[in-house]
Amino acid sequence: MENMKKAVVEKLIERDVGIDDIAVLVYDLQKKYIPDVTMKECTETVQDVLEKREVQTALLTGISLDILAEKDLIEEPLLSIIKRDESLYGIDEILALSITNIYGSIGLTNFGYLDKIKPGILGKLNEDKHIKCNTFLDDLVAGVAAAACAKLAHSRI
Amino acid sequence: MENMKKAVVEKLIERDVGIDDIAVLVYDLQKKYIPDVTMKECTETVQDVLEKREVQTALLTGISLDILAEKDLIEEPLLSIIKRDESLYGIDEILALSITNIYGSIGLTNFGYLDKIKPGILGKLNEDKHIKCNTFLDDLVAGVAAAACAKLAHSRI
Amino acid sequence: MENMKKAVVEKLIERDVGIDDIAVLVYDLQKKYIPDVTMKECTETVQDVLEKREVQTALLTGISLDILAEKDLIEEPLLSIIKRDESLYGIDEILALSITNIYGSIGLTNFGYLDKIKPGILGKLNEDKHIKCNTFLDDLVAGVAAAACAKLAHSRI
Amino acid sequence: MENMKKAVVEKLIERDVGIDDIAVLVYDLQKKYIPDVTMKECTETVQDVLEKREVQTALLTGISLDILAEKDLIEEPLLSIIKRDESLYGIDEILALSITNIYGSIGLTNFGYLDKIKPGILGKLNEDKHIKCNTFLDDLVAGVAAAACAKLAHSRI
Repeated sequence: MENMKKAVVEKLIERDVGIDDIAVLVYDLQKKYIPDVTMKECTETVQDVLEKREVQTALLTGISLDILAEKDLIEEPLLSIIKRDESLYGIDEILALSITNIYGSIGLTNFGYLDKIKPGILGKLNEDKHIKCNTFLDDLVAGVAAAACAKLAHSRI
Repeated sequence: MENMKKAVVEKLIERDVGIDDIAVLVYDLQKKYIPDVTMKECTETVQDVLEKREVQTALLTGISLDILAEKDLIEEPLLSIIKRDESLYGIDEILALSITNIYGSIGLTNFGYLDKIKPGILGKLNEDKHIKCNTFLDDLVAGVAAAACAKLAHSRI
Repeated sequence: MENMKKAVVEKLIERDVGIDDIAVLVYDLQKKYIPDVTMKECTETVQDVLEKREVQTALLTGISLDILAEKDLIEEPLLSIIKRDESLYGIDEILALSITNIYGSIGLTNFGYLDKIKPGILGKLNEDKHIKCNTFLDDLVAGVAAAACAKLAHSRI
Repeated sequence: MENMKKAVVEKLIERDVGIDDIAVLVYDLQKKYIPDVTMKECTETVQDVLEKREVQTALLTGISLDILAEKDLIEEPLLSIIKRDESLYGIDEILALSITNIYGSIGLTNFGYLDKIKPGILGKLNEDKHIKCNTFLDDLVAGVAAAACAKLAHSRI
C-alpha cells in the first residue's frame, strides 16, 4: 500500500503535477465555505485522498493510457480518439468520477466546475496538450481535488 | 409511457419550471461549440430527454420528496436534512447523475458547472428556497439540461 | 452524526431488518475468500458501514419512500410504480449503488448477486411485499451487505 | 461510427468472444421473464448495444489494457495488478458499469449476477486467464450482456 502511494505521487510529478498544485484548487474552492481553511490543511487532505486504493488505481490506469498514447502503443481507432481527447470519449470522466465517488456524491459539482473552468494546474495541463497527451490526467486531477473538497466538507462543515 | 411524460411536464410546470427554461440553459452552454444551434433544436432535445423512462422516474421521485418535505410528511431526521438542503446530503445529486448518465459520462462536466454557477431558472429555484423546498428540483433540472447537452453533442459534433 | 446512526438502526429494526440479518449475508459471501472470518467481524463491519453519512441518508431516503408509499401519501403515477416495484423503476438500485460505491466498485458484483438470488433476509423482505412496500429496502440492505463485503476485502485480503 | 462498431466486433472476435456468445447469456437470463424471447432477438439487441458510442469506447479501452498487459507494455506496479486481476482493482468493473448504465440502473443486478456466476463465455474467459490477460474483457462482456437485458426489458416488459 505504502509503495502504491509513492508510485502514484512520483508518477504525478513526472507528469508535472505537484501535490501543492492540487491543494491550491481545493483551497480556492473551499475558502468561501470554510473561511479559516489553510493550505496546510488542503495539502494534508489531498495526501489523505491519495492513500485510497481506488484513487491510486484510477490514477495509475489513466496516466498509463496517456503515456501509452504518447508512445503510439495503443491500437487504432482508440489511439486517435485518446490523442485528440475527442469530446465523445468519456472514459476519462468515468475514471475521475470513480475517485470523486469515494467521498459520496457531494464532490460531483466541484468536479464538473473544475473540469469546465480549468483553473491553475488544470489550465496548464490543457495547454500542454499539443506536446503531451493529458487526456486522462486533467480529469483525474480535477477528480482528486473534488474528492479532497468533499472530504474537507465532511470533516469541517 | 405517453402519460408518464405528460405527468412529468405537468409536475415541472406546477413547480415553476418550463421546458423553455431548461432549453435556454442548453442553448447557452452549446452555442460556443455548435454555432448554428437554435432554441428550437434545444427545446426538441429537452423534450427527447424527457421521453426516457429513467429521466421520468428520477424527476417524479425527486419532486415528490420536495413536495412531501414541504408538507412535513417525511419523518425526522430526514425531514430537516432535506428542508435545509444540507451540504452533506447527496441523494439529490445522485438522482441528477442518473439522468445525465443516460447519455454517457460526457454530461457530467456540464452538470457540475450548472450546479455551481446556477444560471437562469436554477438561480430562481435556489432563491425560492425560503418559501419552497427545491432541494431535489434544482439538481434534477441541471441534470436534464446536462443530458440534453450530451445528446446534442452526440448528434451534432 | 451519532443520532443519525441510531435513527437508521431503529428504522431498520422497525422494518424487520436486524444488523445480524445483514451480517449473515456478509459472512456467507466472504467465508469462501476469508476462511477465518467470524460473525463478530461481519457484524462490526456492518456497524462501520452504517457510520457513513452517505449510507445513512440513502437508507433514510429509501425507507421513507417505502413508508410514504404504504400510506398512499405519494402522488400518482409514482405511487403505483413504487408499490408494484416495477421492473423499469431503477431509483432503488441507484440508491443502493450509492451505498456500495463508498468502498469502490468491488462491491458491485456482490450487490448484483444478492439482488438476484435474494438469500436470507432479502428473500423475507421480498415475500413480505404483498403486505408491505419494501421496494427500496431490499435493494438498500443488499447494498449495505455488499459494501461491508468490500470493506472486509480492503482490510483482510 | 460504422467503422467503430466494426473495429469493436473484430476486436471481440480476436479475443475469442462472438456476438452469439453474448446473446446466449442474454437469452438464458431473459427467457424466465419473456417466455417468447428468441435467440434472434437477443442477438439483434446485443448488436444494438454495440452501436452505442460509450459501449464502443469502454470495450476498446478495456481490451487495449488487457493486450498491453499481455505484452508487458504497462509500467509497474499497475502491470502486476492487472495481470493478477487483483480483487482490489475495480477499474474493470467501473468500465463495465459505464456500459450497463446506458440503459439505466436496471442492468446492475444482472451484471453483478453474471460476474459472480460466470456462465458460458464468461467462465471460458476466466479459465483462459493463465494464458491470456482477460481482466477487463470478462467484466466488459458481462456489462454488454446486462445492458442488452435492460434494453430488452425496456422494449418488451
